[in-house]
Amino acid sequence: MPHCGTHGTATRAAAIALASLASLLMTQAVRADHPAAATIAAVQIAGAGNGHGAPACAACHGANGEGNSVLDAPRIAALPASYAERQLENFADGRRASSIMMPIAKDLLPAERTAIAEFYARKTTVPSTVADAPASNLGPQLALRGRWTQELPACTQCHGRGGVGVDEAFPALAGQPAAYLENQLRAWQSGTRDPGPQGLMAGIANKLSATDVRAVAQYFSDLPHDLAEARQSPAARGAVNEPPSDSRGAAPPVADRRTVAPPPAAGHMRESGQGAFTPPDESNLPAAEFGNMVRLGEQIFVDPRHTAAGFVGNALNCSSCHLDAGRKADSAPLWAAYVAYPEYRAKNHRVNTFEERLQGCFEFSMNGKAPPLGDPVLVALESYAYWLASGAPISRTLPGRGYPKLPKPAVAADYARGKLVYEQHCALCHGAGGAGRQARDGSMAFPALWGDGSFNWGAGMAGIANAAAFIEANMPLSQPTTLTPQEAWDVARYMDSHERPQDPRFIESVGATRAKFHDTPDSMYGVAVDGHVLGSGSTQPGGFLRTRRPGAGHDT
Amino acid sequence: MPHCGTHGTATRAAAIALASLASLLMTQAVRADHPAAATIAAVQIAGAGNGHGAPACAACHGANGEGNSVLDAPRIAALPASYAERQLENFADGRRASSIMMPIAKDLLPAERTAIAEFYARKTTVPSTVADAPASNLGPQLALRGRWTQELPACTQCHGRGGVGVDEAFPALAGQPAAYLENQLRAWQSGTRDPGPQGLMAGIANKLSATDVRAVAQYFSDLPHDLAEARQSPAARGAVNEPPSDSRGAAPPVADRRTVAPPPAAGHMRESGQGAFTPPDESNLPAAEFGNMVRLGEQIFVDPRHTAAGFVGNALNCSSCHLDAGRKADSAPLWAAYVAYPEYRAKNHRVNTFEERLQGCFEFSMNGKAPPLGDPVLVALESYAYWLASGAPISRTLPGRGYPKLPKPAVAADYARGKLVYEQHCALCHGAGGAGRQARDGSMAFPALWGDGSFNWGAGMAGIANAAAFIEANMPLSQPTTLTPQEAWDVARYMDSHERPQDPRFIESVGATRAKFHDTPDSMYGVAVDGHVLGSGSTQPGGFLRTRRPGAGHDT
Repeated sequence: MPHCGTHGTATRAAAIALASLASLLMTQAVRADHPAAATIAAVQIAGAGNGHGAPACAACHGANGEGNSVLDAPRIAALPASYAERQLENFADGRRASSIMMPIAKDLLPAERTAIAEFYARKTTVPSTVADAPASNLGPQLALRGRWTQELPACTQCHGRGGVGVDEAFPALAGQPAAYLENQLRAWQSGTRDPGPQGLMAGIANKLSATDVRAVAQYFSDLPHDLAEARQSPAARGAVNEPPSDSRGAAPPVADRRTVAPPPAAGHMRESGQGAFTPPDESNLPAAEFGNMVRLGEQIFVDPRHTAAGFVGNALNCSSCHLDAGRKADSAPLWAAYVAYPEYRAKNHRVNTFEERLQGCFEFSMNGKAPPLGDPVLVALESYAYWLASGAPISRTLPGRGYPKLPKPAVAADYARGKLVYEQHCALCHGAGGAGRQARDGSMAFPALWGDGSFNWGAGMAGIANAAAFIEANMPLSQPTTLTPQEAWDVARYMDSHERPQDPRFIESVGATRAKFHDTPDSMYGVAVDGHVLGSGSTQPGGFLRTRRPGAGHDT
Repeated sequence: MPHCGTHGTATRAAAIALASLASLLMTQAVRADHPAAATIAAVQIAGAGNGHGAPACAACHGANGEGNSVLDAPRIAALPASYAERQLENFADGRRASSIMMPIAKDLLPAERTAIAEFYARKTTVPSTVADAPASNLGPQLALRGRWTQELPACTQCHGRGGVGVDEAFPALAGQPAAYLENQLRAWQSGTRDPGPQGLMAGIANKLSATDVRAVAQYFSDLPHDLAEARQSPAARGAVNEPPSDSRGAAPPVADRRTVAPPPAAGHMRESGQGAFTPPDESNLPAAEFGNMVRLGEQIFVDPRHTAAGFVGNALNCSSCHLDAGRKADSAPLWAAYVAYPEYRAKNHRVNTFEERLQGCFEFSMNGKAPPLGDPVLVALESYAYWLASGAPISRTLPGRGYPKLPKPAVAADYARGKLVYEQHCALCHGAGGAGRQARDGSMAFPALWGDGSFNWGAGMAGIANAAAFIEANMPLSQPTTLTPQEAWDVARYMDSHERPQDPRFIESVGATRAKFHDTPDSMYGVAVDGHVLGSGSTQPGGFLRTRRPGAGHDT
């Protein structure tokens, strides 16, 4: 698959010539429809073309599919097979416009497309060809944070940490030539590339300016595609929030917050719009000890599994439910929560401090273990929330707090209707089985919505009303409020009608636990669905669900 | 001492007649100048007059000095002897104007005045004659909280909890006839009563309106004078902050702070003045669980010895250094501190949450033991601070935070000059020996400034600059900023040049401890004063100072 930009015609001619030498054998092998034969055929096509029109892939995409930045030919190594195959189909029928790739794709038989897509998908150890490039703020900002005022999620939210790619629908961006990435975004803008699943990429590209496109393309082209390199790279790990380097202009040290005026661009109440509070900008994060604690808090918030190991029992992040790293209004933003504690909570019948509230997240949403009060994990998270709330008034219910409450639906929420909504709008990211999706480096890209890897029965999201409110206001990413309230209620009921880890407050039996903690129509705990009582664990042999986690406390 | 209002002339004539019967014997006994003889003489004067002009005290003040509200004659039982004697002198020479008491006082020989004052001072078990009276808000507010916008401390701040009286300079107010109390305040206003020690009462009376005078007089006249009764009485214990009773109009219950709008009269930033934040009014304290936690926090703040027993090692209150129960600007107000945490502190080299900061107060200022994080004592105090900060912006340095920093003095702070300042301006309340003063019921009225009952060497107030700043801005009560900055520095140095309990972070030796924690000109720890190295404990046999408290942690 050469890119859709300019090609060296001489190079192409040479490739076609080479390819013709082995055409007969290859055609026969592919037609034999045997895996080994298909592999041999793919090797031949990649290295020498298919002998009946399509040139060698390697001619433009490199010997191992590593791409060629001079030719603007993208990296195709390790691209998910189904994704690559679909692109070849789209090139062939014009849904993805490319004057270079259209004739080549047309010259490939369907079986050849499959074989070549699978051949490159297995090339997972191909090294990167990353060039040094000047850093800019806009690229990492869009790639790692997004621009949520436009409902623009971070690129890495779907394409995985470091842009390494997630399953089939979200190809790797890291290490792709910048011109290639730019061209794709422009193709979505101009409608010359299929809008993609659920129209996500067309919608996203249309929110980007020409400057955005250049910055984000440059950013990902500078990242290592290679996973080992990505793991070493602070930029690929999502370190948008590192202390400012010299190249960006060093922030003045904040030695003593008692005597130093607060940073000028800290949060403020919006004059217009929804009246939501705007937390301070990353660039105003103070240096020195307090700033480091805030930074640690943010790192924990977006990646607790690696920064708060021992306290989390699943692969969710805090930012899975608190979008934009806890900044987004109507997505339970940290700044609104911070000013509301200490607060009495009926959940545990006492006044909770903010740290105690955080403990509840670990215990239930993270299906883990509450860090002890005063633990650096809690202090860091509290410091981060405090900083995000800079300038917000204490004890006020800020607009945008929590999730905007959805009125009860006209028709009672329904499992079957919810299942349809799920398949149409949710499964692409969260998987047909609700188990979420991992990025190519093993990091969790999309959270598990049920099953062993999800939040447990004690979590707020296991309440249907809460889940419906979150979904309606925030899902799918970049397309919030596109589901009707009824659809949100239906899909929330569907999600919460699946098994998940036991409520750590479990007592005696599911019935007793329901009576004590879940005695509301809002909870499916203890309710039978298809003959299985939810909360009783998996009915499968060797089922994954524990009835009770050993050593778990009854409450936080 | 009948009051200075109207008297029943018939009653007085009868008393004079009675008194004449025993005049000879009495006069002789007093002249014998013998304690027992003086007592006998006092009994005679009290019951029958002195036989040479002065009528029986009992005629107007009651058989046991309990007072007579019909005659507006004040209670004189248990009045400190020196106070009562001084009043008789002032009546006699007109410094305290009373047409009734002047001739009577003049008719008493100096030795008779002494005897009668001592006689009534011993009458400590005389029951109260308290009548039911309608409650009002203004009276308890002034009596128990003061009105600090006018630098008007609570009456009970000097006259003791429940107005039971403190040592010699601050007589009991509880159970005195309202008209008597009103008349005294008016006498100070009009200058017909000596302004009292340091002019305190004249200054205070002049800040009161006619309505204030009536309300506060009524409030104290309704309180039991008897200590046992006072201990049973919520009003006498200072319960200004109880949930509103029906008579005051019940506050609407605040069931769920998430959905209920904040109380309308919560704190706001002042438009004018010093720009200090005004915390919400007591009357807006929410009902239900959260409000109860706030109330508990306030109770702990003003009386930790009884509400946080086990965590405090002296008789100080939080409100000893944070005036107006943590509300007063420039007196380390809670609302300004609350919005400033989490914060990095050089004192323990890490980011401290607000709860951790509170722990430090217990460890050092209260010379006690830090409650564990999450302990109800800390949660209640944090809730109280949070509530006081209602509406204040997070992470802003609010005007009035801490104590206003005093520039270094022109002349180095000096012990000898400080001693003079102390004797003139501080000893009245804190005692010549710095040990503070107790109210008649044993509660601490004025905090100990040094010695075993004071804060320890690790407390912020043991730093001279901090102490000077507090003193200049807040001391003496009702007369802040009357000391020059130089006087404040001098007296702070004097105060901090006395022994006090060991720093709980003590290591190895005073020298090593100074090197690690006190290596600054601001600390007298480890410095020799009059040959005694401060921090090394008392040089007296059986000295009260421990070198190190057993089990004390090194830091909070």
